[in-house]
Amino acid sequence: MRHVKFGKCVKCGREYPAVPNLTNCECGGMIDIVYDYDSIQSRFTKETLSARTDFSMWRYRELLPVEADTEAPPLRVGWSPLYEAPRLAAELGLGRLWVKDDGLNPTASLKDRASAMAVAKAREAGARVIACSSTGNAASSLAGNAAAAGLETYIFVPARAPKGKVAQLMAFGATVISVQGSYEDTFELSRQAIDHWGWYNRNAAINPYLSEGKKTVALELMEQLGWQVPDYIAISVGDGCTIAGLWKGLKDLHAIGFIDRLPRLISAQAGGCCPINRAIAEDRPWEPMAENTLADSIAVGVPRNADKALLAIRESNGLVVNLSDEEIMAAQKLLGRSCGVFGEPAGVTGTAGVAKLCRQGALGSGDTVASVVTGNGLKDVANAIAACGEPISIPSDMDRLLAAFAERGLRPA
Amino acid sequence: MRHVKFGKCVKCGREYPAVPNLTNCECGGMIDIVYDYDSIQSRFTKETLSARTDFSMWRYRELLPVEADTEAPPLRVGWSPLYEAPRLAAELGLGRLWVKDDGLNPTASLKDRASAMAVAKAREAGARVIACSSTGNAASSLAGNAAAAGLETYIFVPARAPKGKVAQLMAFGATVISVQGSYEDTFELSRQAIDHWGWYNRNAAINPYLSEGKKTVALELMEQLGWQVPDYIAISVGDGCTIAGLWKGLKDLHAIGFIDRLPRLISAQAGGCCPINRAIAEDRPWEPMAENTLADSIAVGVPRNADKALLAIRESNGLVVNLSDEEIMAAQKLLGRSCGVFGEPAGVTGTAGVAKLCRQGALGSGDTVASVVTGNGLKDVANAIAACGEPISIPSDMDRLLAAFAERGLRPA
Repeated sequence: MRHVKFGKCVKCGREYPAVPNLTNCECGGMIDIVYDYDSIQSRFTKETLSARTDFSMWRYRELLPVEADTEAPPLRVGWSPLYEAPRLAAELGLGRLWVKDDGLNPTASLKDRASAMAVAKAREAGARVIACSSTGNAASSLAGNAAAAGLETYIFVPARAPKGKVAQLMAFGATVISVQGSYEDTFELSRQAIDHWGWYNRNAAINPYLSEGKKTVALELMEQLGWQVPDYIAISVGDGCTIAGLWKGLKDLHAIGFIDRLPRLISAQAGGCCPINRAIAEDRPWEPMAENTLADSIAVGVPRNADKALLAIRESNGLVVNLSDEEIMAAQKLLGRSCGVFGEPAGVTGTAGVAKLCRQGALGSGDTVASVVTGNGLKDVANAIAACGEPISIPSDMDRLLAAFAERGLRPA
Repeated sequence: MRHVKFGKCVKCGREYPAVPNLTNCECGGMIDIVYDYDSIQSRFTKETLSARTDFSMWRYRELLPVEADTEAPPLRVGWSPLYEAPRLAAELGLGRLWVKDDGLNPTASLKDRASAMAVAKAREAGARVIACSSTGNAASSLAGNAAAAGLETYIFVPARAPKGKVAQLMAFGATVISVQGSYEDTFELSRQAIDHWGWYNRNAAINPYLSEGKKTVALELMEQLGWQVPDYIAISVGDGCTIAGLWKGLKDLHAIGFIDRLPRLISAQAGGCCPINRAIAEDRPWEPMAENTLADSIAVGVPRNADKALLAIRESNGLVVNLSDEEIMAAQKLLGRSCGVFGEPAGVTGTAGVAKLCRQGALGSGDTVASVVTGNGLKDVANAIAACGEPISIPSDMDRLLAAFAERGLRPA
């Protein structure tokens, strides 16, 4: 990979060759992939890019840590739609607002970007099996992307994993091991099994290539905006990998001159589980928290990628905002009725944060904001039902319909 | 619309001006939209098309029944991925096989194509409210596409409608009326309410523009195949509108010279509810059937668009194939593990049909087949769980993992 220099520990600075099965630094720190931006800039221009007809994350190959001859995995990941939301912006009192619906990826979450990258790197490593431990979208995206590529997957889930997500794993033909114990127990068994069999490791915050896949959400967002940088980009934060990837993509684009400034990040967490936001707000190291939120994908009390996430938020002079479950549920309805976008609770938390910052006066009519919806509402139907209320129930009788409407003050046009 | 001649009843041949709120013929027959292919052919070429950067159903505007200045509705509908599936083709003994995943539309089903068209025509009609009765994907796609366009929706569902689909409707801000009664009772109340308030009508098999939206799945499929026509296209069939739309798209392309022959259709129905396939197989008029299948989206005992569907299957010299629920569930796993595509039961029924016809020797190594997956598996998690089995459950203990693998004959690479 002539455009990649090396991997570098974000904690101690030690450098490693960027081999396909690179994991953490000996010091325990996360590795960041370092690019040769001069080399990239000399052969990758906006014009080169705009002529491409590959509308997937692989259109940004010059900025991705793969060999020139590495095949893109089969599922069409990325190039999710970006919608401008003028009615919602007006309702919130914002200057302009865009919503990127990343729930329209093949397995219905942003995690497909990381898993597609894992599949590409596993192939480079000559691996035939990929493994990870996860309770949700990381697992299902790995199972789907690997199945399409003809690779086997071994997935370790804690016994409490939602049945729906387990069903997705089983449909993709993964070997699923449900561990009777906590998430830590699950992770530990996956670690031992990966060591034992030498499987390719797609555990987040261990494999440094995953956030390089995730960063494509930022590359797309900026290309779809015509390289006009919004003032803010809002996203939900759990273990920290996604916001770190988002920031990496923005910095890449800035380094090669595709954008002339950097936006400020908005880190949205659940109030019941906000170790990263608390560390920022109180300007001190992060500490574990309980996991009290219905937004399961970001219920991460011990964030595994806090270092990169904290760096990203601080470097961007970012804002942090914590949301109650009620505020998250309200955002689900808000996005649905104003934009036709149905996100899972963690998926809409970024937008919930934007709405709250508008109410607080921290954002207003002078600001432009892009918000990323990270997962589809169909991933978690039970909470959607709780959030969105019940229909009008009547017999098939026109008089009863008229009465029901009158009772509710409904006046159809 | 200079490229549209008129609407014509498929039953009695009577012609009607193609006004935006056109419904059925006075004789009760469905209306088909008739185009001026000479005019279209004179200004629409493959080259014009391939230069377009709009990757949505609206890239085929010359073949769609909308005014030149009608705005495309906001959600990005269409241009779903087409995957070649060489491993699955080899497993089934087919020449070549492609799978089009239409579950990746904005509300996760092919019905978005019809609902986006309904929104466009409602705007032409100057309507601010759209209504329909439905139990599933038609309703949720209408609610989502209308919400994004700022239109109101009134949706009538029978009380038995699955909670998940109702949740999607509520999230999109629809006014949902749950009717205590059968689907016929529900339809009847929606008809009275539509008459009373003059809402725009998106009831399938009444609004003739819906299948014009659905036909874009065929236009895309052929463009994605480089206009090389496969021998067969397989799709699941419920009320008949979708297969009729598919066929209309193929005939359009043939009429304007984009393709040089027509494929044969494969109509896949559930064995427990197959009035259309039975009429073809026994060469007699269709008759109502019970609705005995878990594939809820195609559990249609009284198909409302049987006329157009029967015409399409017969004209194409098509094949019919009926699937048991077990065969449908098996296809869900087959598509998942071999292609990374997760479809709802009705969504995978077309592929189940292809697999069955291969087993029966009706399709083989000399045949090329495209199969359309019409809806996402996340729409119906309960049945996916039933279809796809349970994970291995053990404590976090390496010896127990080794024992569990040995017991199941698993030998990880």
